[in-house]
Amino acid sequence: MLDFSDLPVVDVHCHPYRRADALSPEEWVDALAFGGGSPAYLQEGGIDVDAAALTMLGRLKRDTLYFRFMLHRLAEYFGVATTVDAVVAARNRAIANEGYANYAGRLHQAGRIEALIVDDGYPLPQINLDKFRAEVGVEVLPVFRIEVLIQDLLDDDCGWSEFRQRYDESIAEALGNGGYRGLKSIIAYRTGLDIDPGSRSPDQGRVALDRLRRARGRGDDPVKHLRDHLFCRAIERCIDFDVPFQVHTGMGDWEVHLAACRPALLMELLRYPAYRACKFLLVHTGYPYHGEAGYLANVLPNIWCDISEGLPFAGNAGKRIIAEVLEMAPISRVCYGSDVYGSPEPFYTSALLGKQALGQALGELVDDGFLSVGEAQEAARMILADNARELYGN
Amino acid sequence: MLDFSDLPVVDVHCHPYRRADALSPEEWVDALAFGGGSPAYLQEGGIDVDAAALTMLGRLKRDTLYFRFMLHRLAEYFGVATTVDAVVAARNRAIANEGYANYAGRLHQAGRIEALIVDDGYPLPQINLDKFRAEVGVEVLPVFRIEVLIQDLLDDDCGWSEFRQRYDESIAEALGNGGYRGLKSIIAYRTGLDIDPGSRSPDQGRVALDRLRRARGRGDDPVKHLRDHLFCRAIERCIDFDVPFQVHTGMGDWEVHLAACRPALLMELLRYPAYRACKFLLVHTGYPYHGEAGYLANVLPNIWCDISEGLPFAGNAGKRIIAEVLEMAPISRVCYGSDVYGSPEPFYTSALLGKQALGQALGELVDDGFLSVGEAQEAARMILADNARELYGN
Amino acid sequence: MLDFSDLPVVDVHCHPYRRADALSPEEWVDALAFGGGSPAYLQEGGIDVDAAALTMLGRLKRDTLYFRFMLHRLAEYFGVATTVDAVVAARNRAIANEGYANYAGRLHQAGRIEALIVDDGYPLPQINLDKFRAEVGVEVLPVFRIEVLIQDLLDDDCGWSEFRQRYDESIAEALGNGGYRGLKSIIAYRTGLDIDPGSRSPDQGRVALDRLRRARGRGDDPVKHLRDHLFCRAIERCIDFDVPFQVHTGMGDWEVHLAACRPALLMELLRYPAYRACKFLLVHTGYPYHGEAGYLANVLPNIWCDISEGLPFAGNAGKRIIAEVLEMAPISRVCYGSDVYGSPEPFYTSALLGKQALGQALGELVDDGFLSVGEAQEAARMILADNARELYGN
Repeated sequence: MLDFSDLPVVDVHCHPYRRADALSPEEWVDALAFGGGSPAYLQEGGIDVDAAALTMLGRLKRDTLYFRFMLHRLAEYFGVATTVDAVVAARNRAIANEGYANYAGRLHQAGRIEALIVDDGYPLPQINLDKFRAEVGVEVLPVFRIEVLIQDLLDDDCGWSEFRQRYDESIAEALGNGGYRGLKSIIAYRTGLDIDPGSRSPDQGRVALDRLRRARGRGDDPVKHLRDHLFCRAIERCIDFDVPFQVHTGMGDWEVHLAACRPALLMELLRYPAYRACKFLLVHTGYPYHGEAGYLANVLPNIWCDISEGLPFAGNAGKRIIAEVLEMAPISRVCYGSDVYGSPEPFYTSALLGKQALGQALGELVDDGFLSVGEAQEAARMILADNARELYGN
Repeated sequence: MLDFSDLPVVDVHCHPYRRADALSPEEWVDALAFGGGSPAYLQEGGIDVDAAALTMLGRLKRDTLYFRFMLHRLAEYFGVATTVDAVVAARNRAIANEGYANYAGRLHQAGRIEALIVDDGYPLPQINLDKFRAEVGVEVLPVFRIEVLIQDLLDDDCGWSEFRQRYDESIAEALGNGGYRGLKSIIAYRTGLDIDPGSRSPDQGRVALDRLRRARGRGDDPVKHLRDHLFCRAIERCIDFDVPFQVHTGMGDWEVHLAACRPALLMELLRYPAYRACKFLLVHTGYPYHGEAGYLANVLPNIWCDISEGLPFAGNAGKRIIAEVLEMAPISRVCYGSDVYGSPEPFYTSALLGKQALGQALGELVDDGFLSVGEAQEAARMILADNARELYGN
Repeated sequence: MLDFSDLPVVDVHCHPYRRADALSPEEWVDALAFGGGSPAYLQEGGIDVDAAALTMLGRLKRDTLYFRFMLHRLAEYFGVATTVDAVVAARNRAIANEGYANYAGRLHQAGRIEALIVDDGYPLPQINLDKFRAEVGVEVLPVFRIEVLIQDLLDDDCGWSEFRQRYDESIAEALGNGGYRGLKSIIAYRTGLDIDPGSRSPDQGRVALDRLRRARGRGDDPVKHLRDHLFCRAIERCIDFDVPFQVHTGMGDWEVHLAACRPALLMELLRYPAYRACKFLLVHTGYPYHGEAGYLANVLPNIWCDISEGLPFAGNAGKRIIAEVLEMAPISRVCYGSDVYGSPEPFYTSALLGKQALGQALGELVDDGFLSVGEAQEAARMILADNARELYGN
């Protein structure tokens, strides 16, 4: 195992959050943990959300490896016992003592995190980025999530001419004066990744929107045709502005449909001649189908893999994801990311986990004769920061 | 690697069998081994089942890692040479000397196996469970396989009113006075796991059965509609009786279609509001698609993963399955199981393999800083027995 | 880890190539490396192929683990620095000094490569095998790719009677007097692996060809029906001549569609009664879906797995592929292969990698108690050469 703890980090995919100075242990678990449903999820199923149900939900979150790793590392960082109560008390105390920006900055520095590339389409309502920047004390580069815009336009119930004009102009504004460094799509959560590249015909947008407005709710076909078309338009804007397109692939929460989020479904689109000039960043590298993303990054020259969300939310998967993506993806096409949110702590523990996982995966490649130690060190530097900086021109 | 050899075991998924005191080496291989086809499989393909073909079939079974592990462990247990002949002779001798129940009880005790949760829908005709209980000297809790009942009702060729009434009453009887602790479905072997949750409409059962009876064999559409509906009815009975529903996912034998058995196909159904109160145990945790099952067990609060069949039939996969399922599944949602059958020996060797695989997988999580040794020991105890006891209220 | 460096090797799947005595570093990278697109790929996308684009393409190839491993091993072999320039200079010098056949023969001997089973359907135009045999100094057994023949017949635009007759006769000639040792199909690159076994009806070939000729280019349906039928005919010829059928599964280059190349899609066909007498070799064992291929090789008695292309082109995947395929595939059903081409060097480095990966995978099986050291040595011998010799009757 190699030691990369001193290398700088650019987090290629994460989310801004609202500052919270003091949290109860339950609020902290709820803000940072992953999975296991929610009271609303149970209620919608007609299940009583009593004390036993709440205990069950909390226990599921605390029983994930993701949560255990974070708890152990923070207990070490604060020098307290490995319990939620002790860690949260230490966190609240530190913020009260030194102020939020200092606390966040010190954690980012401990992880050597130098820049965050954030998707501010989550959470909603959107976080003010200037405020966020001031609070976290680290460089923040935003990407623009097209689905927020699409929902706004659908809510306004306008015709295609207006829809298309506002769609194009809003994206151009975001990428021009707006300071956004690229686009992001979560179409995998909506109508799935089997996007027909032929959807780029402007007629498809018009016909699909017309059908949708005349018969809202009758079949999901027009919705899919509309979203596929708007996805294609977004690719074209990325080419125009020479910025990357982040596409969610693979894991999400309970709303993503596993059968529709595989990177393999994107292949026809990614290799379509008109789109070969677009730089696609496959967000979450499609975990648990990350082998497909690595494959695409090998055979197509315009694909980047972001290992976020699998690392850190899939616990000990990190070293496996890195090793398996690198089976085929060129070293220059893999980027560290976390997809975390909510509070500075997981940004720090994710960076620790990312460096540990890289140290194990690249160390094994040295042991097995694939890389010299020097090549491995260069690879770690590229994956942790340089590839993202090159991709986002920063 | 941690040593869990002294921990108690509950086998959450296995099958009863008919007692056989003396077996020839060939019979023993045939009774316990897995895969590689059968004389009937070859005959149906017009292939001569001559001595060479039989040798080939036997060799395929003996060339699996599953078989090699079992042979090595039994040779150690009996203190004989690592050959089929020596092991089978030792087994037959032990049964003759001490009696079947003592022999079986001693093997279960060596593996610290305390309870078997058995699906008596295999083999057919069904095994008498009282007799089986007396022979194996260990606690036996049965689950009820709905497909045996469905086949009986289809064979009786009755109308929907009678079909539905007998289906519901038979399940209620099994879960009430019958002593069954839950249901089990192998719809993955039949019409596949892409079950539409809208199938719960009673009309779908009536229409599908009517179409099926009028045009038996013309397309599989009515069969699928009927099975999907009956699957939904079975979920509702599990909710009524507050018992778990075991659903076969992933690997089986040559009759399961790999493309129709992925856990991902179940997602729409598992998260359907009306079914959120049902506890689903994903049998075989969908191996080789076990990453999908672990994902579902993370993002949905009512999913359990049973690692049976992959462990032990997929040889050295056990430690990988456990590690990869735990990437996302909460520790409280993973259960040891074997899916073995036929004779007491594989129950013992599967328990050995399960403990070894857990020791390796959890030991690595300790090494990588995800769990303390204490947390790993608690996790092993939960996965080997406590999670199954909690799930089955035992 | 066990040391298998002295064991003989039969490469069950690779390609002949045109001799090139002196290559520039760029030509050498281009001839041997994998992935990352090509100037033509970019041009078709309207992208300028300027110096920066060429540098990017070269960098992607050099940034793969496959390439790094090859470079390190060749630098050691020649005793030169680990740079492309030094290795290519040493290679060109060696060929100039000792002659091509001596150079190639010495590399093959260093890897103990004794026989190559070659698919001469790639590259096109086809390589003269007598010439190739003389140049490489090692036994060469060819297999016949049906898609080359199909394309020729389609180009001739003949009716079904002539098409069918020429198709059957050409295959019979190849397998009879032609010296071909079996067939090969890349239908995964064309219309996908979801081949309906009912396609064997002769009517399907006639109707599909008629529809295709009347409406060439209108929908891919007739193409798929025709290819499925011809695939079925090829299976029948393999049964007649008792030779194996190599079927491409899983990874290829950018033209294979990941969603259509999974081994699972073949299941219905592989288990179809009429085809149970055919020996299928699943080329590339379906990587990254190799778990599916291993499963098929377990539950069906007529399936072999070839680990080529994943090993060596997927870098450090080799030991994982072997370990995961052996989870279910009997040891007697797994064959070493490389799928390399272009020059003798990758044949040598692939053999090194294959032996290293086997040493690691089988060594772990010994450590975990699945195999004795003797069993592991026998398994290595079988996988490296004996299984392929048995399959091809050599």
